[in-house]
This record gives sequence, structure tokens and C-alpha cells, in this order.
Amino acid sequence: AGLGGIGLDTSKEIMQRSPKNLVILDRVENPAAIAELKALNPKVTVTFHVYDVTVPLSETSKLLRAIFDKLKTVDLLINGAGILDDHQIERTIAVNFTGLVNTTTAIMEFWDKRRGGPGGVVANICSVTGFNATYQVPVYSASKAAVVNFTSSLAKLAPITGVTAYSINPGITRTPLVHTFNSWLDVEPHVAKLLAEHPTQSTQVCAQNFVKAMEANKNGAIWKLDLGRLDLVEWTK
Amino acid sequence: AGLGGIGLDTSKEIMQRSPKNLVILDRVENPAAIAELKALNPKVTVTFHVYDVTVPLSETSKLLRAIFDKLKTVDLLINGAGILDDHQIERTIAVNFTGLVNTTTAIMEFWDKRRGGPGGVVANICSVTGFNATYQVPVYSASKAAVVNFTSSLAKLAPITGVTAYSINPGITRTPLVHTFNSWLDVEPHVAKLLAEHPTQSTQVCAQNFVKAMEANKNGAIWKLDLGRLDLVEWTK
Repeated sequence: AGLGGIGLDTSKEIMQRSPKNLVILDRVENPAAIAELKALNPKVTVTFHVYDVTVPLSETSKLLRAIFDKLKTVDLLINGAGILDDHQIERTIAVNFTGLVNTTTAIMEFWDKRRGGPGGVVANICSVTGFNATYQVPVYSASKAAVVNFTSSLAKLAPITGVTAYSINPGITRTPLVHTFNSWLDVEPHVAKLLAEHPTQSTQVCAQNFVKAMEANKNGAIWKLDLGRLDLVEWTK
Repeated sequence: AGLGGIGLDTSKEIMQRSPKNLVILDRVENPAAIAELKALNPKVTVTFHVYDVTVPLSETSKLLRAIFDKLKTVDLLINGAGILDDHQIERTIAVNFTGLVNTTTAIMEFWDKRRGGPGGVVANICSVTGFNATYQVPVYSASKAAVVNFTSSLAKLAPITGVTAYSINPGITRTPLVHTFNSWLDVEPHVAKLLAEHPTQSTQVCAQNFVKAMEANKNGAIWKLDLGRLDLVEWTK
């Protein structure tokens, strides 16, 4: 899990369900947020590691090795790193797509049942823009289509790997992501403002639905979390 | 256009329609293929430039500047560079996704009607794996989902940019791409062999259908080119 808008509120919801451990990985340390999380439930061991998803796969493996050595088991990986700024093509793709693939690839070393691993669950935070192309931010939208598709492949691989997966696809949510950002080639110079005028949901309600989806634990599910609702998307192509 | 399996056969079909110019961009020079193309129709001026889609955007701009300076106008861009090898995560994403986005972004400088450009047409070679997640090659499949989604955004942007777009989505085609390749984490060690046993189509029939789709010139179309057929995919998400 991370400390972004949806990430932090989801972590708070998770804390209330008393897992044994919660490991937070994020690019930037935020001691206040960690302290706030810890205070919610003293029974949960919360640890934090700096992790930039754009590092090479070998770095991710090393970090995961340290975490698995300490905890022995990890049940769930939430891939939630994301940026929204279509002026930054390479970085959008590196964080939203390559980073998610590499983090998932790295954890397979510990989970894959073909290697004697116990399996696991991957929850990927994607976006409704992954299935409804959003022309103001075509690079962001495409990066999200990639991870929706990748998650579906992961789910189909569960019989081979023992690892299940589902995607969490928020609609427009009031997160720091949408405060200010650029459209591709400035095709919509006021995109952030226009987006804020759309019906939106809070990160809190989105986080509550995220945890419901987690509890449903449905391999291959494409969950849509929009306008305060939680719905399954049927993929019929 | 390029010189890969589908690219070369599509270029041959295009030559028979006598465009004024055909500009071939590919990572590797192939004088025999260029000579073969030229011989098909002496009325067409065929030029070749070495182009690796993974170069920075500024390099692509420079190359396009030279081409536009010489030809004055370019009507159609075919983005066809692609690799299939899920052992190469970064490279798959760089070629299949980032390269296509950067090439398209670079040509907008010359086409965008907001900058006084004449508009243009982008034909993106994607894949049916972009809408049917193909678990043996989840990285390839996801990269193709990205470009299908990106193409849909481009099409929606046509009223702003004057540039239309459609995607060409081949099914399994007998190209050099599918001779030998790796599955992700070797989840299916015999993937290339198994794929070859599936019903396939030749690059020739795929190229003929590609040219039909070009002639239809339908903004936003998601063309499926599979089993020798050409069909429109309805996107209903």
C-alpha cells in the first residue's frame, strides 16, 4: 500500500480490520501519515519503506527479500503508485505501467507456486479511464488500460502461479492527483478545473469500497469504484 | 510504415495504389526489401530512414522535420513498430507503447490544426490481445491495450487537432514476431509452438485487410483483422 489520497484512506480502512502487519511502500516518507495510521490500531505492526516503483527489478527484489525475511509471509500486494500529468509521457508510463509490472514480477519470486511459494493476492489500482479512453489525458488513460489488461492476464494465470488478482478502477476521485495536472499537448488547458466540476467521490468512500472489493477477493474481478458505488465490470470483447 | 512482416506486405499493397510518396521508417535498413518495393511501382517515390521508436521525442521531431521539409505534406502515419518477448519488460513497453505515443506526439507539431497544420491520419497497429488479455504474454498484451486506448483518445481529439485515428488489431498472424518468443516468467514455456498451432492468417491477407481499413478511413474505428477477416469491434464499456 502507499500514502497517496486513495492509498492512505485505504490503509486506514485496512488498519481497522486488524491485519497482523501493514507494510507501506512509497516514494516519499511521510512520518505524520504513518503515525496517524499507527494510532488507529496499536495491535497492527506498521512498517514503512521508501520505494520508487521506477527502480530496476533487481532493486525491488532486494527490498521484497528484506520484507519477506522479516514477515515470513505476505498475503496481499496493493499496487497503487500512479501519476497524472500528460506532459510527462515517459514518467507516466514508467510509474503507472512499468512500475506495476515490475513490482508484480518481483513478488512472484516469493509467491509463485511453481517455485514452492504459497501464492498471494495482487490488487492493482487502475482507473475507469483504462476502459473509457479519456482524451484529455490519453497517455494516463492508455497506461491504465495497460494495467487493467495486465491484471486480467494475472488472474488467468492463477491456476499456474497460485497468485490471484483483481483491478480496482476508481472514477474521478478528489485526490491530490486531480488538483492540477496537464493534458496531452494542452488539448484541454483547463482539464483539472473541468474535472473538478464533474460529479466526484471522496477518497474515503472510494477507500471503503476498495476494502469491500478486497473482502470479496474475487480473482479476475474488474471493480469500478465511481460516484460512491462499487460495481463489477463485465468484459465481453 | 515499417518493414516487419505485416509492415512490408502492407507497404506492397500501398504501392499498388500509387501514392505519390512512401516513406519507410525502420530500426534496421533492408535494401533488398526497399528494392522489391520500388520495383512494384516505379511511379512511387520510396524513401527509407533508419528510425528506432525508442529514441527521445526530440530526435523523432528532427527526423520528421527533414521528411516534412522534403515532401511538404504527409497524409498518413502508420505506427507499426512492435516486439513480442515478455522476458523484456522495459523494451516491450518502450517499443510498443512509448514509441507509438512519442512518434504520434512528434507528428502533431506538423499536423495539429491549432498550430495551422493541415491535420492527418494515424493508423496504429495494435493487437487483439489489447482487448482479450493474453495471459501467456501479459506485458505484450498490456502494451497493446495501452495503444488501443490511446488510439481511441486520439480519435476523440480529432475535432480539436484535425488528426483522425483508428487501430488495426491483427489476431495471430504468421510473422517473424511469433517464430520464437518468451512468455512472462516462462508461464508457458512452449508458447510460440502452441500459438503456431492455433488457426492463423498470413501477413498477405492481413495486409490486404489493413489496406481496406485504410480506404474506409473511419475515425475511431477499432478494426479486428483475424482469421483472414476484417471486422469492426464495438467498444461498449
